[in-house]
Amino acid sequence: MNLLIISTGGTINKLYNELTGELQIGESVAKNICSLARGNMKIRELSIIGKDSLDMTDEDRALLADTIKSANEENVVILHGTDSMDKSAAVTAQSVKDKKAIFVGAMKPYSIEKDEAIFNFACAVGFLRSTPANGVYISMHSLVLPHYEIYKDRVAGIFKPLNNT
Amino acid sequence: MNLLIISTGGTINKLYNELTGELQIGESVAKNICSLARGNMKIRELSIIGKDSLDMTDEDRALLADTIKSANEENVVILHGTDSMDKSAAVTAQSVKDKKAIFVGAMKPYSIEKDEAIFNFACAVGFLRSTPANGVYISMHSLVLPHYEIYKDRVAGIFKPLNNT
Amino acid sequence: MNLLIISTGGTINKLYNELTGELQIGESVAKNICSLARGNMKIRELSIIGKDSLDMTDEDRALLADTIKSANEENVVILHGTDSMDKSAAVTAQSVKDKKAIFVGAMKPYSIEKDEAIFNFACAVGFLRSTPANGVYISMHSLVLPHYEIYKDRVAGIFKPLNNT
Amino acid sequence: MNLLIISTGGTINKLYNELTGELQIGESVAKNICSLARGNMKIRELSIIGKDSLDMTDEDRALLADTIKSANEENVVILHGTDSMDKSAAVTAQSVKDKKAIFVGAMKPYSIEKDEAIFNFACAVGFLRSTPANGVYISMHSLVLPHYEIYKDRVAGIFKPLNNT
Repeated sequence: MNLLIISTGGTINKLYNELTGELQIGESVAKNICSLARGNMKIRELSIIGKDSLDMTDEDRALLADTIKSANEENVVILHGTDSMDKSAAVTAQSVKDKKAIFVGAMKPYSIEKDEAIFNFACAVGFLRSTPANGVYISMHSLVLPHYEIYKDRVAGIFKPLNNT
Repeated sequence: MNLLIISTGGTINKLYNELTGELQIGESVAKNICSLARGNMKIRELSIIGKDSLDMTDEDRALLADTIKSANEENVVILHGTDSMDKSAAVTAQSVKDKKAIFVGAMKPYSIEKDEAIFNFACAVGFLRSTPANGVYISMHSLVLPHYEIYKDRVAGIFKPLNNT
Repeated sequence: MNLLIISTGGTINKLYNELTGELQIGESVAKNICSLARGNMKIRELSIIGKDSLDMTDEDRALLADTIKSANEENVVILHGTDSMDKSAAVTAQSVKDKKAIFVGAMKPYSIEKDEAIFNFACAVGFLRSTPANGVYISMHSLVLPHYEIYKDRVAGIFKPLNNT
Repeated sequence: MNLLIISTGGTINKLYNELTGELQIGESVAKNICSLARGNMKIRELSIIGKDSLDMTDEDRALLADTIKSANEENVVILHGTDSMDKSAAVTAQSVKDKKAIFVGAMKPYSIEKDEAIFNFACAVGFLRSTPANGVYISMHSLVLPHYEIYKDRVAGIFKPLNNT
């Protein structure tokens, strides 16, 4: 499987800066996670935008959609902050019709607790292995659903299906 | 998704016993990994056999196949040692026709390095989310394939596709 | 050894709050670290102040010194933020004359990377095992020195001896 | 502080070999732990013997004692299996009179759970920072005692003081 991974920033990629005491966007964690495939995936990585998803602008989303659209790969995973993942996915879906694009994030940075990031990412990989229909999906907390069938419960900190199936 | 998880032992479940200095089969790690779904999966867990897969007998495999066959759940994940996973999957496939059963293991115990176990398990979950055809599959190292299309390269310690796709 | 551990907050005790995306002072990590003594230390724990050390006031420092002074234990470890650890230690030294009090902190939260916190804490424990002279000490980055012989190099993020020995 | 670290093998240095499923002696973990000193210790490392301490012979112990005796450093930490640590320490004490030599081990390999290894090692470092009397010591489970005042309770898996102080 040829897989393009586009990292846009987000909590999943945050690192603790011990000199400032703040969390900041670090390098994409995709390479670390993909090493678990032990060579069974051909990866290309892009890092763009590099923001908290709350700070993402319309221009950022247009750039993201264009980047996905113009890619050669049919399978695309997008690392993205969880707060506006749904919005970026909706914008992407308007123009990207011929790919399987899956948005992945995490409530906790990989650098703090990697379990959730690995889990959410790997669910996307497993879903892609089934050669699903083209579309824009979100993979969070074991769900992999079309982007319009999943939402973030901000009080609980859990992604849930819109139609409770 | 209702998911039955059957733990048969295997490296994935091994724990270090500091009094003997040996690794031994511990409790199933499934509960820990499934907590990452944050309530989005209904889990039932069974622990049977509790062996290294090299020690598994024909009777063990028959018991495993029967357990899967008689389960109410359509989706089944089997935690299993990697050395004879293919054999147990083949036996299972002879009698189990109406389910999606996925064998999952790890080269390293979850208790030593949890990344690989989480990754292999979550690939199975993501694959199941696509509602695949009934069948017996193996999920290892990012591949989720029908059991007869994947093998363990014992020199490299990597599962690989039989037809290099 | 009877040991009093006073947690005042500080980076060492910070936890990631996934709902706010912020780090906040959590429960004292002392209990977790002290479990490594496997019963060889009698611990009493107090949590007071609960602040970043940059926010600590003169009143806070007076409270800390009083708490140490009035304790029955001869050996006291204080978990404290690294930024004003030296100041709190100096205030403590003015009134506490009959104890061994050691300030311990970490540049990285225990919850993010526990190695440094365990290391700095255990250096204090090992130093106390030598039954040192009464005094107020700082244990950071392998140094255990009287509080006036060590400083934080804020550019490098490393505690260093004032007299380079 | 100039510190010589002699690694003789032992559980502390064991690694899981995923191809054999066995634990084997790996590289010394001393470098990783010492990086937590952030440059405040000058380290020299030697690896000799490379055995489980149950397999150590009289010749091995003689070699170890000679290596310590002939070292230039006054401060020596010896990474050693816990099962015959006391015996090696006793042999060392017969010939080494002008140094502070501290034996350190762990019930669990650093590669499986690093907390205990870091803790035991750092207690030795903190003890050395107090410039103790020359002697041969054991640092385990928060105790740092002359080698003849501490023993391993093999049932509990805990080092304890011979005179319960």
